[in-house]
Amino acid sequence: MLAHHSTTPPLHHSTTPPLMTRVAILGATGYTALELIKILLRHPEAEITAITSRSERGHVSSVHPSLSQRLDLSFENLSPQQLGERAEVCFCCLPHVASMESVPQLLDAGMRVIDLSADYRLSDPGAYEQWYGHVHTDPARLGRTVYGLPELFGDRIPGQTLIANPGCYTSTSILALAPLLSAGLIEPTGIIIDAKSGVSGAGRSPKTNILYAECNESISAYAVGTHRHTPEIDQVLSGVSGQSVEVIFTPHLTPMDRGILATIYAKPTGRAKPASEASQAELLAAMKEFYAGKPFVRVVEHLPRTKDVAHTNYCDISLRVVQDRVILLAALDNLIKGAAGVAVQNFNLMCGHAETTALIV
Amino acid sequence: MLAHHSTTPPLHHSTTPPLMTRVAILGATGYTALELIKILLRHPEAEITAITSRSERGHVSSVHPSLSQRLDLSFENLSPQQLGERAEVCFCCLPHVASMESVPQLLDAGMRVIDLSADYRLSDPGAYEQWYGHVHTDPARLGRTVYGLPELFGDRIPGQTLIANPGCYTSTSILALAPLLSAGLIEPTGIIIDAKSGVSGAGRSPKTNILYAECNESISAYAVGTHRHTPEIDQVLSGVSGQSVEVIFTPHLTPMDRGILATIYAKPTGRAKPASEASQAELLAAMKEFYAGKPFVRVVEHLPRTKDVAHTNYCDISLRVVQDRVILLAALDNLIKGAAGVAVQNFNLMCGHAETTALIV
Amino acid sequence: MLAHHSTTPPLHHSTTPPLMTRVAILGATGYTALELIKILLRHPEAEITAITSRSERGHVSSVHPSLSQRLDLSFENLSPQQLGERAEVCFCCLPHVASMESVPQLLDAGMRVIDLSADYRLSDPGAYEQWYGHVHTDPARLGRTVYGLPELFGDRIPGQTLIANPGCYTSTSILALAPLLSAGLIEPTGIIIDAKSGVSGAGRSPKTNILYAECNESISAYAVGTHRHTPEIDQVLSGVSGQSVEVIFTPHLTPMDRGILATIYAKPTGRAKPASEASQAELLAAMKEFYAGKPFVRVVEHLPRTKDVAHTNYCDISLRVVQDRVILLAALDNLIKGAAGVAVQNFNLMCGHAETTALIV
Amino acid sequence: MLAHHSTTPPLHHSTTPPLMTRVAILGATGYTALELIKILLRHPEAEITAITSRSERGHVSSVHPSLSQRLDLSFENLSPQQLGERAEVCFCCLPHVASMESVPQLLDAGMRVIDLSADYRLSDPGAYEQWYGHVHTDPARLGRTVYGLPELFGDRIPGQTLIANPGCYTSTSILALAPLLSAGLIEPTGIIIDAKSGVSGAGRSPKTNILYAECNESISAYAVGTHRHTPEIDQVLSGVSGQSVEVIFTPHLTPMDRGILATIYAKPTGRAKPASEASQAELLAAMKEFYAGKPFVRVVEHLPRTKDVAHTNYCDISLRVVQDRVILLAALDNLIKGAAGVAVQNFNLMCGHAETTALIV
Repeated sequence: MLAHHSTTPPLHHSTTPPLMTRVAILGATGYTALELIKILLRHPEAEITAITSRSERGHVSSVHPSLSQRLDLSFENLSPQQLGERAEVCFCCLPHVASMESVPQLLDAGMRVIDLSADYRLSDPGAYEQWYGHVHTDPARLGRTVYGLPELFGDRIPGQTLIANPGCYTSTSILALAPLLSAGLIEPTGIIIDAKSGVSGAGRSPKTNILYAECNESISAYAVGTHRHTPEIDQVLSGVSGQSVEVIFTPHLTPMDRGILATIYAKPTGRAKPASEASQAELLAAMKEFYAGKPFVRVVEHLPRTKDVAHTNYCDISLRVVQDRVILLAALDNLIKGAAGVAVQNFNLMCGHAETTALIV
Repeated sequence: MLAHHSTTPPLHHSTTPPLMTRVAILGATGYTALELIKILLRHPEAEITAITSRSERGHVSSVHPSLSQRLDLSFENLSPQQLGERAEVCFCCLPHVASMESVPQLLDAGMRVIDLSADYRLSDPGAYEQWYGHVHTDPARLGRTVYGLPELFGDRIPGQTLIANPGCYTSTSILALAPLLSAGLIEPTGIIIDAKSGVSGAGRSPKTNILYAECNESISAYAVGTHRHTPEIDQVLSGVSGQSVEVIFTPHLTPMDRGILATIYAKPTGRAKPASEASQAELLAAMKEFYAGKPFVRVVEHLPRTKDVAHTNYCDISLRVVQDRVILLAALDNLIKGAAGVAVQNFNLMCGHAETTALIV
Repeated sequence: MLAHHSTTPPLHHSTTPPLMTRVAILGATGYTALELIKILLRHPEAEITAITSRSERGHVSSVHPSLSQRLDLSFENLSPQQLGERAEVCFCCLPHVASMESVPQLLDAGMRVIDLSADYRLSDPGAYEQWYGHVHTDPARLGRTVYGLPELFGDRIPGQTLIANPGCYTSTSILALAPLLSAGLIEPTGIIIDAKSGVSGAGRSPKTNILYAECNESISAYAVGTHRHTPEIDQVLSGVSGQSVEVIFTPHLTPMDRGILATIYAKPTGRAKPASEASQAELLAAMKEFYAGKPFVRVVEHLPRTKDVAHTNYCDISLRVVQDRVILLAALDNLIKGAAGVAVQNFNLMCGHAETTALIV
Repeated sequence: MLAHHSTTPPLHHSTTPPLMTRVAILGATGYTALELIKILLRHPEAEITAITSRSERGHVSSVHPSLSQRLDLSFENLSPQQLGERAEVCFCCLPHVASMESVPQLLDAGMRVIDLSADYRLSDPGAYEQWYGHVHTDPARLGRTVYGLPELFGDRIPGQTLIANPGCYTSTSILALAPLLSAGLIEPTGIIIDAKSGVSGAGRSPKTNILYAECNESISAYAVGTHRHTPEIDQVLSGVSGQSVEVIFTPHLTPMDRGILATIYAKPTGRAKPASEASQAELLAAMKEFYAGKPFVRVVEHLPRTKDVAHTNYCDISLRVVQDRVILLAALDNLIKGAAGVAVQNFNLMCGHAETTALIV
């Protein structure tokens, strides 16, 4: 029930109405859910029919004032069965652990699910337990759930009933590294990822370390050597390269709302002549070829800025060769291409809509 | 020639193609032009065919890297005649004075023009000379050009060949004040507008006072009593109220990219009972009635934040009655509803497109 | 026990050591307490001997990492008696209500107290109850406690045992208005104070509305007509002007760490010729004369910026005459001149140190 | 002639006045010069007697309003001879090239010089020409000028007549790496420095890339593989380690006023057992021992934040061992410990003042 439908002409003009997919959003109070709602509001083939929260009961605009007069729904606490009657597809924005409790029930209720938590990303229950400190309660689905990075696994997404939406740091890192790793142009060992994220990536629950007066005018590393996106990066890149990859990953909290910049240091293999202009051009060409026809990755010559991808579903990637290293630079919006945008991209592929629907603004 | 057309399905699915309007952007290196391009790229009935600059000759992405692989045009230096062959409509983003030199020629070349400068906003050539320090060279069009604030003058816009796009502070102030002034609910005298703007409002030409290290962690008033949006506000509000209005207008430079918040102090007339809950509700109801059916003004109960309207064409307005004053609060995005967004809203009305086309994302 | 004493020469070179005053800080986990500690660490005649917290027990640097290796104290939970044995002077940074419970006991324990809460600022217990929603439990001291704004009441501070340290918005507003009000140059009625504050003013307790991702890129008004600094401003200005003053006060949350800018609108009385260059100069001269010899108020010709007073104990003030109004502009650092700095200024006066000791850096 | 002397008691109380050193600041319009002036204003043994500029002639407060009523000097254009009559010590804040033209004349005029440009930092004229694109015009002093990093070369500074003040990125990087390199605990090869700087490091000359609306809400790498601080880092670290060091250095422009965080990746040598808690503690202990008695380097256990060193002369350093790497983290204020603060530290050592004078606030 989109409030603006009364005043807005539909974005599509076909003579026969499109098939509308009814979607629900579980755990809709956070920043990712807000972006998801905004994207779905402009999606010509999706209709938001339910938003849930365990604690909130008010109108959506009481938590998200930017949605005032745009979406006439209130937060509800609905069972999986109730959700299944309301919607065909569920975007699950619950925290990890909560997610793996709900997802099996949502699937049982006949819904397709795009899970934005980490619960279905790792293929190994042991790794999950090691990094998340919880025994996985739905281990049978691990390793069988498609990892929702469409640029790599897009051909496996159509028709799936469950997609594990990737982490924001993970997408940035993998999109930068996959082309050269899969082509054998960089070594799978010794990769260093120095990543900088805006504060919205830390969520909307009040904690001292994400207060304005703590983060503003400050940059710092955190979770050095212990960040939970690390095993996700390792798992996907190991698959891509066919060799065991263990990256060093250092996240930094950066004084901005949104955006991730990953600066990645890798060693070229013998196949690309190191330390020369020629090899830089060669590597960039390989990168461009890898992403030919992929609408949301822009391989650019200039050094990417998070500002240029903010509020978009683009990931900008470039590279430089310095001494004996390839320095890869990748930027995306952590809430869009790093979360809500790629979730809709997965939704589009899963449900047979055009991949870019509602995602190019 | 939109670069993404090759990979992106069109936003509309009709069986007969819509009539595309070819548009040109004059002076396309600034922040407003960038937003204009982004909006027009998603407009199903507009095609950007030329962007001009006096100094730049490179590809649009060399100045605006966020447009990489989205628009395959380079900056050109085109005569009005050349522009007239390329486009039906011209968005003129030149600075004042430069604008009134070009606009008559653009009109002569058969184009419709939306002028984003101040050159056609004031109806009195004397006032123009007083505030801008230049004799107006096209005085015959002053007073006859429609002021492009669609919520007030929307019925006069269809079919026009020239629209004067309003100033950003002006729109914020007028949208807040017009309903109560026109209903005689506040006094036309003694109005104080204390406005706070993000730094993008100062443009993209390098000047010391808009450097990051000057503006960040700082707020200050500027141009106290002398800002050029003042006569524009006075002129429109005098028309609305039928009485001479002379506001006190104090702009402030605020450490954020975009957004304007106007905090406005006015005196209720006898018609609204002052200083009571009753009158606050009554004034708010009058405001809501005034904007009924207007898709881009949201009269809200909560106190508006610039963040909630950033990157949108919405203006959020609320009010409070404190002692013997009405305090009006209005927020919009200075680059969108305050410039590029309202320009496209004017374009839509002028050319017969639905008012909200490309503007609700 | 200053950790840096081992490596740092004292700031003073006198042959006889100065009399060190031992000071304690109650409720030392917040931003104001941090600034207080930093100032006192450079104070040649003060020694911090205790810091307390109800919840924290770790080393001061565990909460305030900027104090690493500068102050070798841990948070303690001390009784007033224990505090009285440790220190002669207590800076009380407890929240309101908690403060009026502790202050009488601290005084009984023989300490001098500078109270940074609101508990002793208002002279009327009824006004306290109205604005703070609590019955005042130490009403006998209201009206007899000196309000610690040294530029107005400095001559009453020496020798006091209890000082009510002013609110940050209050100091900004009063310092701007007092000179012209006391000289009868502006009307005591119809004063509007539009104030903009950095986020640190909202404290360090985690709340959603002061998260980075909520405040950044956003400005909004809050507590319109209901902010608790209002009665404080009214009370002091009524005293200064000899007439009842009821200001309209609108605070705004501004995306910066620290700083307050107050933009104040007042009407000149007949005594200053309005709306002329002459009267502006005259008013500025009166302002300068009022603050002659006051080291921390700088009456300036330019428009004040919060950046120019950040991290200092200065308050910069200027004014403009526009139409029939005087627009006063005042800027200070809410944590220094608005809280910790003025507290030390009061401490200096109370204990007989030079007023500027430790405050000009 | 410090304006506040009339109202402010001196910071020192000795019965015999200290020997005041008269100092001049060349090129005093930038951010570093402003910080230098603020530090020197509180220095009990220094008096600022001249500030110069090639373009500005107004009062110092016309360019630096934060100095209003604090320093009663105007910008002058003085010859080296005139400067020599005014001051014993000159802080030279000219850009490179301009600096090497003036320094020899200043020395000839009998002054001691602390040069904040890059002109005397590199010991090899060829390297200078390669990185700065200019033939060095005073090559005889290269290799003989002491590099003013007091923590490493403090014993050589007393009595010098010329000091080359280090670059901001350089100091951050070297302070982090020198202890472990000199102890042979990390390999001199394969060092990667990923550094993040606030925007003030780019200076105060207006350029598009440092406008607020460009930098805010954005992080990006720049000068990848080509930044001029690289050879400076290599030169000093080669000296420290006794082996050729060629680091990979990647600077990033970060949306904050001030601060540098360097995240540095190095390989432990066999001497420290890698990848274990034991070795992390061991490396940290070696770091602490190296800086024992150094007042401005704080080796801390927690992960440094730029906020904790902002506006101070401290450099906070910590480390983590992750897999087979040592990750060093160092934070300082680019304008203070990275420029003006260390310049005064050098001044103190050069002239026989206590090293910390005026630098601990």
